[in-house]
Amino acid sequence: MSERTRFDLSDGDIPSAWFNLMPDIVQAGMQPLPPLSPATKLPIGPEDLTPLFPMALIGQEVSTDPWIDIPGPVIDVYRLWRPSPLFRATRLERALDTPARIYFKYEGGSPAGSHKPNTAVPQAFYNKEAGINRIATETGAGQWGSAMAMACRFFELDCTVYMVRASFEQKPYRRVFMELFGASVLASPSETTNSGRAILAEHPDSTGSLGIAISEAVEDAATHEDTNYALGSLLGHVLLHQSVIGLEAQKQMEMAGERPDVVVGCVGGGSNFAGLSYPFMAGRLRGETPQMRFVATEPAACPTLTKGVFAYDYGDTAQIAPIVPMYTLGHGFVPAPVHAGGLRYHGDAPSLSLLVREGHMEAKAYTQNAIFEAATLFASTQGIVPAPEPAHAIKGAIDEAIAARESGQERVILFNLCGHGHFDMQAYDDYLNDRLPEVEFDPAEEESALAGLPEVPVG
Amino acid sequence: MSERTRFDLSDGDIPSAWFNLMPDIVQAGMQPLPPLSPATKLPIGPEDLTPLFPMALIGQEVSTDPWIDIPGPVIDVYRLWRPSPLFRATRLERALDTPARIYFKYEGGSPAGSHKPNTAVPQAFYNKEAGINRIATETGAGQWGSAMAMACRFFELDCTVYMVRASFEQKPYRRVFMELFGASVLASPSETTNSGRAILAEHPDSTGSLGIAISEAVEDAATHEDTNYALGSLLGHVLLHQSVIGLEAQKQMEMAGERPDVVVGCVGGGSNFAGLSYPFMAGRLRGETPQMRFVATEPAACPTLTKGVFAYDYGDTAQIAPIVPMYTLGHGFVPAPVHAGGLRYHGDAPSLSLLVREGHMEAKAYTQNAIFEAATLFASTQGIVPAPEPAHAIKGAIDEAIAARESGQERVILFNLCGHGHFDMQAYDDYLNDRLPEVEFDPAEEESALAGLPEVPVG
Repeated sequence: MSERTRFDLSDGDIPSAWFNLMPDIVQAGMQPLPPLSPATKLPIGPEDLTPLFPMALIGQEVSTDPWIDIPGPVIDVYRLWRPSPLFRATRLERALDTPARIYFKYEGGSPAGSHKPNTAVPQAFYNKEAGINRIATETGAGQWGSAMAMACRFFELDCTVYMVRASFEQKPYRRVFMELFGASVLASPSETTNSGRAILAEHPDSTGSLGIAISEAVEDAATHEDTNYALGSLLGHVLLHQSVIGLEAQKQMEMAGERPDVVVGCVGGGSNFAGLSYPFMAGRLRGETPQMRFVATEPAACPTLTKGVFAYDYGDTAQIAPIVPMYTLGHGFVPAPVHAGGLRYHGDAPSLSLLVREGHMEAKAYTQNAIFEAATLFASTQGIVPAPEPAHAIKGAIDEAIAARESGQERVILFNLCGHGHFDMQAYDDYLNDRLPEVEFDPAEEESALAGLPEVPVG
Repeated sequence: MSERTRFDLSDGDIPSAWFNLMPDIVQAGMQPLPPLSPATKLPIGPEDLTPLFPMALIGQEVSTDPWIDIPGPVIDVYRLWRPSPLFRATRLERALDTPARIYFKYEGGSPAGSHKPNTAVPQAFYNKEAGINRIATETGAGQWGSAMAMACRFFELDCTVYMVRASFEQKPYRRVFMELFGASVLASPSETTNSGRAILAEHPDSTGSLGIAISEAVEDAATHEDTNYALGSLLGHVLLHQSVIGLEAQKQMEMAGERPDVVVGCVGGGSNFAGLSYPFMAGRLRGETPQMRFVATEPAACPTLTKGVFAYDYGDTAQIAPIVPMYTLGHGFVPAPVHAGGLRYHGDAPSLSLLVREGHMEAKAYTQNAIFEAATLFASTQGIVPAPEPAHAIKGAIDEAIAARESGQERVILFNLCGHGHFDMQAYDDYLNDRLPEVEFDPAEEESALAGLPEVPVG
């Protein structure tokens, strides 16, 4: 009767192994640099990470295997929301009057409303297996903390979440969500850690930042024997777990009889976009689909990939997390309080940074009003109200569709809709009432943040 | 490897026709009574409803056909979130240590987060087809208004929503959701209608009620040539549209190789539970599955089915909507402000009321803390945070599972999880912090509401 607009897998189609792009990156001639110890500035070994992570995750972090089996108990939990649907956005296509065909993978149907549980669950599983009793982590807007709280509940781990104070006060419902799953939620900076106390001594009214919250969680984990740390993006094992998104999407695009010309996603630390794109990126790196394009989108207020430098930098404010090679705006940079809280981080995943530097991935930055305009058009046509973070991906996909219209060419666009916006209605209210400032990064004003980079060359 | 826990249909499995239980009700010997005009107290004909509804919906309201084709443009929109998944809650089963097998249909993945779009979309479609330009409707907690706002946007209709003032002030994010889809949202009672002005003249600080908001929306539609009215529950055509839930669930239970022993749902007006249960109820009425049980759950603060009377009553406070035969607590009854706003209505759908009266459906009432305890256990095991309304269904399902454990019998339980609770975190915060009063209906105190019933016998 009409064109097919959704491509549903069955429970047997959940991937049985995660996909690791690192062998392809090396094979394609790129040289990933090792993370360094913040104390010695020398490459860290597995033993340096054992205060923070279980050995299984450390092994995944450095693995050169292209496939890593997903444990059965993890798949059992994945089944609570996976496989996720893939849709063709024909109603959006018609509104744009474009010859492009737009597909999106939707991760907002998970219990936490985003892709974050894809890695929270295996992280909780491996920690439980290793005899850990408690997880310390941080959260900005609350998506990651929500996912980790749920995962800890499932595997009977205690969970302490350091939540950026500004969000703690502005988004009480995310805090309640975490508490519902039994987590303890502390406003960061807190009086609980040395890192937090040091900030509060100097800035008693600090509203916090993701960098500070990471410092607190890392310190908590490092100073408690039974406690490990968990991170929701940036690290290799996190990106690995998110590969379920792209592996499913590959099957679904095959069901649709299509191959994407361009794959689009939003990037904070990089995990949702790596999750969707890396299985497709393998084809590009192997020369099978050399023309396939990849577009990373980010906020103009925190334009790490478009205006940052590729350098070794600390992952956190207090300089106690490992130093990694990445695009960064400097670990001291505090992004303006735009609503896409999940994209307000000073750096990006090292592998994704490398792909951008080597020209395998493009990057674009958008301002707030532009992304909310795109989100509103999307909701008006496709119904789903997106979170502010994937609204960047939607804007990128719309731009690609308009370019196709202007050039009169067909184009197959695939993007990741990594979460719904039901916890973000204040942002939409601000947009609808013209209260969103157009914040852009000003390199001149932000030089000081970059001045704090550790002096380690990146090649 | 492990038991199957989800049963996914593909897009071709969306029903092509809605199921109408009325022929089976009549065939089974039950006598549905006609709605009456509030002016004459005589049975109303189609012409009495034309100021409010398009003829296609009036036809569905009185149809004796068992199947009614779903228009193609409606199916195209259904595809944005249908078919919805059906899960087996094995993690909940283990937590309850029950031999019962618990299945649930999940409607929270729709763009509005509930089952409401299943009827909002066809209602908007038929009104557009009939040349209507604008819809007036009411909303309590906001689920229905959100769905209708979205549906109107899809079919290019203007939309005015009279939102119960208490919710308008307590749930600004639901208002924003509707505004994002272009709807005008007014706090009810408003100064826009005679009904609203009359209430405000007497009670300037009125926080409103669903009955008042219905009066305002009906008046708005009846007094504007280009405007029709839309209702989110109670009426026959609404229940009809929701049958997609049960029709899909029947296929999915077949995939699971199971037949439910008991079907459970929450009842406000009755649409979500009728949607799930009526296709199964047909088997009971036809004598094919005479032992299959049906359990309707409701709040102890608004126990229409368990403590109401079966009588002819007005659908709204101002007595301008039709008079219908149903279980009612009286159209003047204003339920206590429990968090399950979608269940705070003084009556129930006539067909569902009849099934309860004739013993085909059981009914149970639960207090707030009991349903939030059930909801928290469900979230802790299955991940999904339910809205307070389906938390009643969860409590009902858990009680059935416990009964199975105590009697040592297997039992297949199917319930409808009609919406997620991401807009209801304040309610969970109140529950977690022991701030939920245990409100129960007191017949002695509420006699006055029943005293206002129209004097029309129901047989």
